[in-house]
Amino acid sequence: MAEMNLQVLLRRRPKGEPVPEDFDIVETPVPQPGPGEVLVRAHYLSLDPYMRGRMSDAKSYSAPVELGAVMEGQTAGEVVASNAPGFAPGDTVLGGFGWQRFSVVQPGRLFKIDPKEAPLSASLGVLGMPGLTAWVGLEDIGQPKAGETVVVSAASGAVGQVVGQIAKIRGCKVVGIAGGAKKCEFVTEVLGFDACIDHRGDLNAQLDRHCPQGIDVYWENVGGAVQRAVFPRMNDHGRMVMCGMIAEYNDTEVRPGPNLMATVRKRLRIQGFIVSDSGWPRYPQFRQEMLGHMASGRMAWREDVVEGLSNAPDAFIGLLKGSNFGKLVIKID
Amino acid sequence: MAEMNLQVLLRRRPKGEPVPEDFDIVETPVPQPGPGEVLVRAHYLSLDPYMRGRMSDAKSYSAPVELGAVMEGQTAGEVVASNAPGFAPGDTVLGGFGWQRFSVVQPGRLFKIDPKEAPLSASLGVLGMPGLTAWVGLEDIGQPKAGETVVVSAASGAVGQVVGQIAKIRGCKVVGIAGGAKKCEFVTEVLGFDACIDHRGDLNAQLDRHCPQGIDVYWENVGGAVQRAVFPRMNDHGRMVMCGMIAEYNDTEVRPGPNLMATVRKRLRIQGFIVSDSGWPRYPQFRQEMLGHMASGRMAWREDVVEGLSNAPDAFIGLLKGSNFGKLVIKID
Repeated sequence: MAEMNLQVLLRRRPKGEPVPEDFDIVETPVPQPGPGEVLVRAHYLSLDPYMRGRMSDAKSYSAPVELGAVMEGQTAGEVVASNAPGFAPGDTVLGGFGWQRFSVVQPGRLFKIDPKEAPLSASLGVLGMPGLTAWVGLEDIGQPKAGETVVVSAASGAVGQVVGQIAKIRGCKVVGIAGGAKKCEFVTEVLGFDACIDHRGDLNAQLDRHCPQGIDVYWENVGGAVQRAVFPRMNDHGRMVMCGMIAEYNDTEVRPGPNLMATVRKRLRIQGFIVSDSGWPRYPQFRQEMLGHMASGRMAWREDVVEGLSNAPDAFIGLLKGSNFGKLVIKID
Repeated sequence: MAEMNLQVLLRRRPKGEPVPEDFDIVETPVPQPGPGEVLVRAHYLSLDPYMRGRMSDAKSYSAPVELGAVMEGQTAGEVVASNAPGFAPGDTVLGGFGWQRFSVVQPGRLFKIDPKEAPLSASLGVLGMPGLTAWVGLEDIGQPKAGETVVVSAASGAVGQVVGQIAKIRGCKVVGIAGGAKKCEFVTEVLGFDACIDHRGDLNAQLDRHCPQGIDVYWENVGGAVQRAVFPRMNDHGRMVMCGMIAEYNDTEVRPGPNLMATVRKRLRIQGFIVSDSGWPRYPQFRQEMLGHMASGRMAWREDVVEGLSNAPDAFIGLLKGSNFGKLVIKID
């Protein structure tokens, strides 16, 4: 029997929390590359919170996934067949090929990497879009200075891990926020943050204890109760790097936010960004820096690897609830 | 009878809207300058919304006025007696001498100006702290580019007048927001904004009509209902220059603000500033530029001059309600 492609499609738009029935898993023939095209087999798929936005047709920075179309996502894999100069079977490549085993790609959407530099899956996390997100947000908005207090929500997640470690390298006091004792222990013991707050406990008391000097930089991944507790503790000239608000992605009604008069009194900067706006042209510089940190033992990371593309919907639903522990990737069979 | 000093003191901290009884008006002897000091007679006092914050003892960027102390404020006047080198009777000076006729000042707190350059009161408005506020906020945060849509709240006020005219000079489409037909007519006919929205009318309908391309830069002076109507209309990469929220200064409970997820989706920058942080070292450059705009007829301004220092409390109470029309100054008798 000929090998088949496996694809995860968006069947319908979720109302609130996604459910398995919002997805279709289908087997289809392996596509054939046309002139100038490349056939890629994906080995790893990155699952990331932003994908919840792509499932909705609400106005956003990016078009939604069409109903019946393959779910979007970053992948790492290898070239199987190539009609494009510069790419040959066996080449290791990154790209946004979606939730599928095989895909036919234009060479301009492929990024060739050296597989000896790091494990392949790392190029979807610490060396991939999440790591680049951390790096760009700190470079452009957070701009942490030595001695400042940096608070990172979703600290054990794909982006948070990197944010906090870069801030530590820059000489900051870094306090993570994560869900549960195990994640918190990982954040302090493995990632080396100065402290980690369990958001299931008393947020205010823990913030009082671990941020007695207030907060200079807040990395926002979650929104909700964490944002409400952090906001009044921002110091004068504080920066809030708005990366995501995962705790509110399944909301069906919009919650109110903080009164903005504090932005005047404290000269706060609240700024959002999307890594794809300006990040990829800076990827080589980022990758170089990160490989240096990894080589010198100052950049740890943790992955949560789920086997099998057909498990992607359940894994993604869990991601939105914080069930994963570390960067969530699917190992594609 | 010897000439007396006249002073307005803070008697008690207002609850909500200030009332005349929150102030004391007293006659005191004219102070005498000691060695190295200068005696100044103020001719004009600037009344500005930020003074409401100084009357409260809530934590803010600046210490509150002590009970029984002279109210703070910017003034323009002349040197009456000087024991300081570089200052002589008759010199025209600016400084923060407070709500009083006479004051003894250290020379480091005096800024000498050429009275022939512009009417004295202008140095409290278009050429003073409010004008500098407009200039700094646009330079550092708003950064309007030709062709962008800039919305300015409190458009006929001291800061708003200058914000909109600088944005026009930079080639933007400028839409003001003001209270009532007379102010709106002034904003379009005299200041030359492209349109002006009456916030007493239907804000959403008027914003739809005058900002069909959305809003790239919003200058926030008012908060409240105007902020709620503007926020969802911010364009991708929009900037909100957070200068003040006068509509909420007399609130006794804090209102909720907008949900901040839009800052991620649209990559918004919401940033507050206080002109005194970094503005005064740039005052000479600002004044030079503004005098140029005034000479070429591209910088109009309107003042609302109230006669008599003893009328300052009532005038200030009116300012918080939008009763003034143009930059509010007290002509000190």
